[in-house]
Amino acid sequence: MDWNVDKCAERILLKDRSSLARAITLIESSKKQDRILAKELLAKLGNPKEHKLRLGITGPPGVGKSSLIEKLGMNFIEQNLSVAVLSIDPSSQLHGGSILGDKSRMLDLSRQVAAFIRPSPSGLHLGGTARSTQDTIQLLEAAGFDVIMIETVGIGQSEISIFHISDLALMLVQPGAGDDLQNIKKGVMEWADFFVISKADGTTKELAENTYQDLVHSLPGNSENSIHKKQIFKSSIEDKESIQTIAKAVWQHWESLKSTEQLKHKRNLQQADYFFYHWAENFKEHLLFDQNFVNQLNTCREQLKIGAISREEAMNLLIRFTFAV
Amino acid sequence: MDWNVDKCAERILLKDRSSLARAITLIESSKKQDRILAKELLAKLGNPKEHKLRLGITGPPGVGKSSLIEKLGMNFIEQNLSVAVLSIDPSSQLHGGSILGDKSRMLDLSRQVAAFIRPSPSGLHLGGTARSTQDTIQLLEAAGFDVIMIETVGIGQSEISIFHISDLALMLVQPGAGDDLQNIKKGVMEWADFFVISKADGTTKELAENTYQDLVHSLPGNSENSIHKKQIFKSSIEDKESIQTIAKAVWQHWESLKSTEQLKHKRNLQQADYFFYHWAENFKEHLLFDQNFVNQLNTCREQLKIGAISREEAMNLLIRFTFAV
Repeated sequence: MDWNVDKCAERILLKDRSSLARAITLIESSKKQDRILAKELLAKLGNPKEHKLRLGITGPPGVGKSSLIEKLGMNFIEQNLSVAVLSIDPSSQLHGGSILGDKSRMLDLSRQVAAFIRPSPSGLHLGGTARSTQDTIQLLEAAGFDVIMIETVGIGQSEISIFHISDLALMLVQPGAGDDLQNIKKGVMEWADFFVISKADGTTKELAENTYQDLVHSLPGNSENSIHKKQIFKSSIEDKESIQTIAKAVWQHWESLKSTEQLKHKRNLQQADYFFYHWAENFKEHLLFDQNFVNQLNTCREQLKIGAISREEAMNLLIRFTFAV
Repeated sequence: MDWNVDKCAERILLKDRSSLARAITLIESSKKQDRILAKELLAKLGNPKEHKLRLGITGPPGVGKSSLIEKLGMNFIEQNLSVAVLSIDPSSQLHGGSILGDKSRMLDLSRQVAAFIRPSPSGLHLGGTARSTQDTIQLLEAAGFDVIMIETVGIGQSEISIFHISDLALMLVQPGAGDDLQNIKKGVMEWADFFVISKADGTTKELAENTYQDLVHSLPGNSENSIHKKQIFKSSIEDKESIQTIAKAVWQHWESLKSTEQLKHKRNLQQADYFFYHWAENFKEHLLFDQNFVNQLNTCREQLKIGAISREEAMNLLIRFTFAV
């Protein structure tokens, strides 16, 4: 294998696209050899010199997430910031494939030297995705991207999970979402920092304005004198100013967050939560890397196939084998 | 606690509804005490005296699964067969709740003494659902229901998983599904035993007929001289005869399956596959029942919260603690 951890790490620090792509593929792999290389690479890269903005962007399918990400990304690049985009698709396990598109959706942004777009992995198991997303973000931060945008389709719990990996979260809302607003989970309402009504132009302009007003009046906490008020915007990809306003607000919020202990605290909490909810996936991986365990697992499976033991007995056998003292 | 395993088992053998409901709630619980009681109960009930039909019914939302299940159920009851209906919702983890309705959808059937309808559990984790579905089916079989219908919404992998728990599987197809037919996963096409086009009446009658013809010509294997040809039907809940035809075909297929070694073989394979794909969930449960492990898990979480250790270090600590020799 001509792959070299030191060289790859060097090139990643130069934001070399093909090295980044290769490293992420390695991170997403569940093969033992790849996992070892990925760990080596991440260790080599070490902790990023400074914190970089992890901006989570969520919303229902068709609301215009990719368009907003492209426009926001272009705006950041105009401010001499480098941008990475990561799409995660928590539903790929159920739907058997990605429901997000790929980088061809973000044509302008993908042409920028300072931008790196990673499409959603498809066909991955949920566990793999959760683990590899954490590692990929760490990689992109080590590579020095100023803004890492993480796009996810909003469906129930996945909206919550984006808050476990972003410093700031933006929720994109469909004009006329009206009744849907009540369906937005309370948790999302509380966690998101920015709400953006999309398509505030043409035939949906008035509808967007109404939804904007609805949101302004229904958001919890905004009536109180809270320090970090949730901010609500209307956006139109035709209207550069609307994008600029959002990008500016995001960056200001980020700078103020970075200047306090709050960011470090938030990230520590995220790591703790991630660990608490996902340890079992790592255990599973750990066990499947052990050939003795795999042999025992296969033996149990074969015994079940011929009806020699019951499911309960097979499980007890495997548990005794694994946790024997 | 006034709950008594012996008494509950007795009542379950009499198909007492409230005892059945209570037992299933116990089976679905992830509490340690409940799990112990559930295991005791299942052990007490033992293996069913004879195999009972496990009929899986899948199809997209809105295709008419509940209506067909109700009509089929009523037909089986007219033949003096007892019927249990179990709804499983593999998407509840993502959507944070059930997308299936409840027994109020099957009014006629729910009024029958010989019928038991268990609505989908909501808010359960996928793992819990998979494990508890297996145990619930075992319970219903031990209770002596002649037909156990298992309803699931067809979304990608969940369609496959219904084949892991049913003896026979019926796929309900929307009239005019045309293009969708190509989207039906190859696996489903191969696994399902019956295809039923719904709504073959009124304004959708012709469309249903066309879809029927499409299916007849596109199903793999049906051109060959296979022993168990896949059977294709049109159904209308207004047309009792169409339901009767399906019920009869299902029962005939079941009787021929039961009379061979094939059924035992199929169920053994299912148990083996289930075990192979779900062992990690049982391991997780096993570990979480151990207070020492939980304490260690919480310690790691707290250390992460204050940033004292990294995620990698926390995972290594927990792995060493658990698998130490």
